[in-house]
Amino acid sequence: MANCLVAQSGGPTTVINASLAGVVKANQLNPIYDTVYGGLNGIEGILEERLYDLTNMSDFENRVLRQTPSSCLGSCRYKLKRDDETDYRKLVAVMDKYDIEIMFYIGGNDSMDTVDALSQWAKKNNIAKRFVGIPKTVDNDLMVTDHCPGFASAAKFVNAVVTSTWQDYNVYTRSEVFILETMGRDAGWLAGSSVISNKVDLLVLPEEDFDQEVFLAEVKKCMETKNKCYIVVSEGAHFADGSYLAAGKAVNDGFGHAVLGGAGNAVKNMILEAGIAPRAKVQDLSTAQRCANYLQSEVDVTEAFQLGMSAHMRSMNPAFTGQVVGVVRKGGAEYDVNYIAGPADEFANHVKNIPSEWILPNYAGLSKEAYEYFTPLIQGEPALIMENGVPAYVKPYHMR
Amino acid sequence: MANCLVAQSGGPTTVINASLAGVVKANQLNPIYDTVYGGLNGIEGILEERLYDLTNMSDFENRVLRQTPSSCLGSCRYKLKRDDETDYRKLVAVMDKYDIEIMFYIGGNDSMDTVDALSQWAKKNNIAKRFVGIPKTVDNDLMVTDHCPGFASAAKFVNAVVTSTWQDYNVYTRSEVFILETMGRDAGWLAGSSVISNKVDLLVLPEEDFDQEVFLAEVKKCMETKNKCYIVVSEGAHFADGSYLAAGKAVNDGFGHAVLGGAGNAVKNMILEAGIAPRAKVQDLSTAQRCANYLQSEVDVTEAFQLGMSAHMRSMNPAFTGQVVGVVRKGGAEYDVNYIAGPADEFANHVKNIPSEWILPNYAGLSKEAYEYFTPLIQGEPALIMENGVPAYVKPYHMR
Repeated sequence: MANCLVAQSGGPTTVINASLAGVVKANQLNPIYDTVYGGLNGIEGILEERLYDLTNMSDFENRVLRQTPSSCLGSCRYKLKRDDETDYRKLVAVMDKYDIEIMFYIGGNDSMDTVDALSQWAKKNNIAKRFVGIPKTVDNDLMVTDHCPGFASAAKFVNAVVTSTWQDYNVYTRSEVFILETMGRDAGWLAGSSVISNKVDLLVLPEEDFDQEVFLAEVKKCMETKNKCYIVVSEGAHFADGSYLAAGKAVNDGFGHAVLGGAGNAVKNMILEAGIAPRAKVQDLSTAQRCANYLQSEVDVTEAFQLGMSAHMRSMNPAFTGQVVGVVRKGGAEYDVNYIAGPADEFANHVKNIPSEWILPNYAGLSKEAYEYFTPLIQGEPALIMENGVPAYVKPYHMR
Repeated sequence: MANCLVAQSGGPTTVINASLAGVVKANQLNPIYDTVYGGLNGIEGILEERLYDLTNMSDFENRVLRQTPSSCLGSCRYKLKRDDETDYRKLVAVMDKYDIEIMFYIGGNDSMDTVDALSQWAKKNNIAKRFVGIPKTVDNDLMVTDHCPGFASAAKFVNAVVTSTWQDYNVYTRSEVFILETMGRDAGWLAGSSVISNKVDLLVLPEEDFDQEVFLAEVKKCMETKNKCYIVVSEGAHFADGSYLAAGKAVNDGFGHAVLGGAGNAVKNMILEAGIAPRAKVQDLSTAQRCANYLQSEVDVTEAFQLGMSAHMRSMNPAFTGQVVGVVRKGGAEYDVNYIAGPADEFANHVKNIPSEWILPNYAGLSKEAYEYFTPLIQGEPALIMENGVPAYVKPYHMR
């Protein structure tokens, strides 16, 4: 017998720890690994041998872990270079030292790419180490899987904020525009999910080039009809030349990703400057949307946990490497999924966008297919364990 | 028998409708008024005779109403002039026309002042109309009452956001400042409530003049110790000369109140400019904090409902006018309150601030008394009725 390693990477979500809890629980039900090591702060910490023994986690801790937002093992933005073996060899040396045979990597696009690169390289060099991916991302932009753990809870929070702020901005009779900004750099899934609240007048997605003239004409039309306009805009909304609405604020996070923010304010300013409304308020959901564990989606937290279990269970097959687990929706009236696995390179490095045929013209929102896609995902709320008035959480392992 | 009128005013809260539900329910248990009219959009709508019959509200609607955020009757920013009888006479004419003997006004400081002014004027002119106040405000700045309905739910949300975003910003090892901006123009109760999360390193309140030099020195000390700093700042934070940190963005809402926003960004900019941290993130809770019905405090919603009932029940006494209901904390280890009523002028027009003896020097937070004050208020969560993944709500009466 050997040991296994679990790590988390990239931006955290509300249910990324539920996948971790799933791996740990599965090994308690079927202890195929002697020790379940948590790698602290992703690849960065693993290379420094910062490991935490999770094997004998209590059931209570496991339950609280499922409702703990953010990455309880810590995360990193460190990217393994595909064309440089130094880090690969270092990683394998650490794995050897701790008799670790397999690594479960919970992450988004970049992490799934890492799983692919590591497993390809290991195979090529006859190194008996395996690498398996468990997806997470509020952006929902991975291929193959129907949706990504973390997305549904964020979408539920977005819908709750839209519904409640819509009621708030409607209390006064005055002319008013409300603008909600959500995450979503390249794909507009989170912003798009807001349509099922039936409160959104105009939706601005990164899937389409932003046409200021057409957009402002729609705002004007809306204001003339009902004196109010509720707009949802994705942080990644951009003009035809590729420049972001939030331009000027873009900096680089080291991955070649622009760090965005301010699309909502950009929209506000253009509306006020055009004199279309005398008043516009912006709500930028910012960090809160990816860690709102007080409103987890039960579908999401269940699937995230079960994907962790599924990855562990499938790993009894010694050929299971370079694979990522996911879900595929079954047909039928009742929402249900099949748990699947597929090659990491098919999940990663392609951004899954909202299908263009779902996007209605003139910022009018999304088609019926989108409602059918989003609605089941935000249903149900797990019973939370509370402490001092807020959801109890597991103290981050990397901070102990 | 005659009729009664209920109206809401000022900025909405998560439980302002629970007080409305309390008045309606009390009249069903003891129908001392033939009709319970809801006045739409506050004084403004009442003067236009926009009334809605709430008398026979179903129990289900009453329950959903208690979890409906914002003012379900609509609100207004229209202020009755104390030295001009025109509107007073118009209001009494509408009340006469609909045989309304008493008005319950749910609101904050300005509304309680209106209750005082109207009842004084009616007495002086021998007009047999009564005016009763039911407090609400997320700002928690009314006198006499231990706290104001609406505050505790907002404080619970603030604590949940602090706890979850604290976990989020800690995932990376990088140097980072996180800044949470809360509401609170003149009083820092909402920002102050965040201390009970035990996550806040520095707290900036409007109760004290902001000293940039001292503050930045504290941020620096914190960064040197742990490479991270979690800051909570109230929107009303201001320099010694009275100018807001968010200055430049202040506009007027027609009440002589500055409309604020941007204190968080101001703090961020001064930290970055001073080179104390390479990275700072701002989360402005904005509108969401006063309508986060997905995380109501059970204490808050219960008290708000019961204050509505209490106001109605006390009104069986024909001398009950010019009064506002409230709660006073009982002594003892277990949290409990006495329901009280007192003259409206004692509640209104004085801002209740955080006691200066609770405020620790150097932005270090609040004393033990504050923890004892805040902690019981954010306990418990009502069982919510959900619809399409988010809390069900009553369609605003003023939008029907």
